[in-house]
Amino acid sequence: MSIEIHPIRGIPEVAPGDDLAGLILRGLETSRLDLVDRDIVVVTHKVVSKAEGRIEPAPDDRTYRELAEREARSVLRRRGDLMIAQTEQGFICANAGVDRSNVEEGSAVLLPIDSDRSAHRIRKRLEQATGRSLAVVVTDTFGRPWRRGLVDVAIGVSGLPSILDLRGQTDAGGREMYVTEIAVIDVIAAAADLAMGKAESIPAAVVRGLDLSGEGRATDLVRPPEEDLFR
Amino acid sequence: MSIEIHPIRGIPEVAPGDDLAGLILRGLETSRLDLVDRDIVVVTHKVVSKAEGRIEPAPDDRTYRELAEREARSVLRRRGDLMIAQTEQGFICANAGVDRSNVEEGSAVLLPIDSDRSAHRIRKRLEQATGRSLAVVVTDTFGRPWRRGLVDVAIGVSGLPSILDLRGQTDAGGREMYVTEIAVIDVIAAAADLAMGKAESIPAAVVRGLDLSGEGRATDLVRPPEEDLFR
Repeated sequence: MSIEIHPIRGIPEVAPGDDLAGLILRGLETSRLDLVDRDIVVVTHKVVSKAEGRIEPAPDDRTYRELAEREARSVLRRRGDLMIAQTEQGFICANAGVDRSNVEEGSAVLLPIDSDRSAHRIRKRLEQATGRSLAVVVTDTFGRPWRRGLVDVAIGVSGLPSILDLRGQTDAGGREMYVTEIAVIDVIAAAADLAMGKAESIPAAVVRGLDLSGEGRATDLVRPPEEDLFR
Repeated sequence: MSIEIHPIRGIPEVAPGDDLAGLILRGLETSRLDLVDRDIVVVTHKVVSKAEGRIEPAPDDRTYRELAEREARSVLRRRGDLMIAQTEQGFICANAGVDRSNVEEGSAVLLPIDSDRSAHRIRKRLEQATGRSLAVVVTDTFGRPWRRGLVDVAIGVSGLPSILDLRGQTDAGGREMYVTEIAVIDVIAAAADLAMGKAESIPAAVVRGLDLSGEGRATDLVRPPEEDLFR
């Protein structure tokens, strides 16, 4: 199947208390995009967090570091100003997800408290307004051990499986698949970023053409400590 | 910009010595896809490795493990049958990239010896045949620490920057970007996988709509050990 990824333009700066689903709907109109069944609306958490009031004053480096410490459930590694930590929700990322880019000077944006729930709320509003059967993915931008550069991953989802489990299926040679558990919401998060353009700060996109349904959670992707070789 | 991802269907089973670029061109014809300037042809390394003869007999688990040991330059962790190792080219992945899925029974497929070079060769052939200015990305499917499930990443590239460096650019608020180095070829690799469908074993796709040019290498993404907190 062919996939299309369309940026949602025209979403203004988001402030605490804003109706984000409403702003996305207006952006869809500005972008002349009509949602169809099975469309996946991908939203960067930055605007979700802002709408939910997850912004704190961070006038200096010390305040910023204190915020990151507060948001961290546990710390895996530290080096200089960088802390790799697990958030309350379970995600492992730099500075427990506390970020100072794309937020006004002197502030820092935190991750949503429950980003799966945030995705679900936005989905329900979009489905009510459009009458379509949709999915929503909330993303953040993570670094990776061993590989330079950042990629977007899913930290919230509604209306999709989090993992595509192909175990038991056979490959083209009739052999049972070894490579089998695809982190499909992370793949969708990464793909959507291609249409957003980091410097332009387009905070949402539509991924069209995937025929998936399910009710996974982004927290399903957190590898349990006992399975994890790199804690 | 909107992005399109089209699967390249009709590529047959690939055998050592096959002209992979020729098979991709035939697949493009079968799929009724005409390449345009700036198209990115994404190819799973499995077919690249097969065409390059990087297949070895692996009739049993012991032979398979020996192959993985041979392909590993160094080993980061072991647990049971799983070994996380660095390949000669520098990539860190399970079993040094030696894989038994999508290959005939009793065989294992190794990574290309120099997958950046493989990408370059395929690109040159495709450019000669089509008269278009193209890019090629060679992918593999990697696991990640901390996050369950697999995603495709780039292990070879030609005609693209490996990293988009947005440092010095400002975000929507006029503030200098903190999140700045995007691993764009990994993002492209992940996105292309959406159109391939693991169980169908479509080994290539076209990513269209990105306006990027450069001459990066996938090995640029290997984080130097002294920067890496998780070796």
